[in-house]
Amino acid sequence: MTRPSSRPRDRGIPEATVARLPVYLRALHGLTDRGVPTVSSEELAAAAGVNSAKLRKDLSHLGSYGTRGVGYDVEYLIYQISRELGLTQDWAVAIVGAGNLGRALANYGGFVSRGFRIAALLDVQESLVGAEVAGLRVEHSDQLEAVVRQRRVSIGVIATSAAGAQTVCDRFVSAGVTSILNFAPVVLNVPEGVDVRKVDLSIELQILAFHEQRKAAGALGPDWNVSVEPPPAPPERVGGRIPVDAVDAAEEEGR
Amino acid sequence: MTRPSSRPRDRGIPEATVARLPVYLRALHGLTDRGVPTVSSEELAAAAGVNSAKLRKDLSHLGSYGTRGVGYDVEYLIYQISRELGLTQDWAVAIVGAGNLGRALANYGGFVSRGFRIAALLDVQESLVGAEVAGLRVEHSDQLEAVVRQRRVSIGVIATSAAGAQTVCDRFVSAGVTSILNFAPVVLNVPEGVDVRKVDLSIELQILAFHEQRKAAGALGPDWNVSVEPPPAPPERVGGRIPVDAVDAAEEEGR
Repeated sequence: MTRPSSRPRDRGIPEATVARLPVYLRALHGLTDRGVPTVSSEELAAAAGVNSAKLRKDLSHLGSYGTRGVGYDVEYLIYQISRELGLTQDWAVAIVGAGNLGRALANYGGFVSRGFRIAALLDVQESLVGAEVAGLRVEHSDQLEAVVRQRRVSIGVIATSAAGAQTVCDRFVSAGVTSILNFAPVVLNVPEGVDVRKVDLSIELQILAFHEQRKAAGALGPDWNVSVEPPPAPPERVGGRIPVDAVDAAEEEGR
Repeated sequence: MTRPSSRPRDRGIPEATVARLPVYLRALHGLTDRGVPTVSSEELAAAAGVNSAKLRKDLSHLGSYGTRGVGYDVEYLIYQISRELGLTQDWAVAIVGAGNLGRALANYGGFVSRGFRIAALLDVQESLVGAEVAGLRVEHSDQLEAVVRQRRVSIGVIATSAAGAQTVCDRFVSAGVTSILNFAPVVLNVPEGVDVRKVDLSIELQILAFHEQRKAAGALGPDWNVSVEPPPAPPERVGGRIPVDAVDAAEEEGR
């Protein structure tokens, strides 16, 4: 196995692959926790919930091919993915909103271990300012621009109510922050060049619900849970169905 | 456009599609919030971060094909996906751990709007028992089995520390809960037939970091951020690389 001497070219990685790399990383850290040194593409694919052909293709973008009959070296693959995602450097993150969610995020161990450092926790509410959370003192939101500049904050996290989120977002953007993670239940408007990602904490619950429904349906028979009236069907349209393009057969196999 | 008179067959939906349905749903709710009545597969695919061929294929599993030149009816597609995921019924969820994270989850509006009802919030710490959070009274973890039985809890959420998580998990399982969402930074051991999903709150941050890195690298030139020493490369193995199978070309286009 040859080791690339420099970082692989960055340009060619599809966005869909980028979105899966953190999922592989989570699975790999799980393997490390259990002391597993190598992993086959099938095992890693199963742990990450994708098919193994896609996993191999994704990892090939990183110049990582594994070894036939052995698989991938877990620790080295963690390094390769971390490097690709930019997690081998230290990212300063500012959290606005020091309610339960902001506090939980500031205390969340998973950020530090992935290269994220909470540089500040801010809140607009005077009564919270000065409180100590996760070794930080809560600062007033008035300080946002100063904090971003002085502590070189690259990523802004919005953990406010829906009502306050857009204002905080605008201030992050005007302070020069171009990456924003939004936990508030609102769609943010940002100028071109600013990346916003919205967290939906219910996504994993929804996947569980799907399986729970299958298990229950298996026990109770069909149509047991049709309890909500559907909305009116859309009106008949002129024109036919949108054709479904051929998608690779491997995808169809699931996982 | 014909409307299916009964639920589509459940068996044939690939796991990877199931995992993407909540992401489509999140994007669709975003469109509803902005008052958008119909959406093209390209727009929806872009909002969800997948390619449009895959989106159309995924939705075809639900019997949803859209209309050529018009796209998909947003409200009806929300209904179809919600039904498929089992979100049109009411799922009772119990959260163990009433610290910042458990409280934030209990307060999280996104659960209720997706069909999840927080039926109980429990904690082992006496000082937290009796506190009111999101209209619930925190109950002692001793009550876990009784709560699961009496309130027909289907999904258990673990928001404890790493140290307490396995014990809570074992108690959920012995009380008959077969779907567990784990926020604790630990890998849980469960018997066959129990689904566990582990939430990593840093995943979206990692995707932002990837893009932030690209923006910064564009400004600063190559190799500006190689700051961490790589681990030793894995030893040379006998045998060649694992071959990369052909994956559909559409995937390569990204998004």
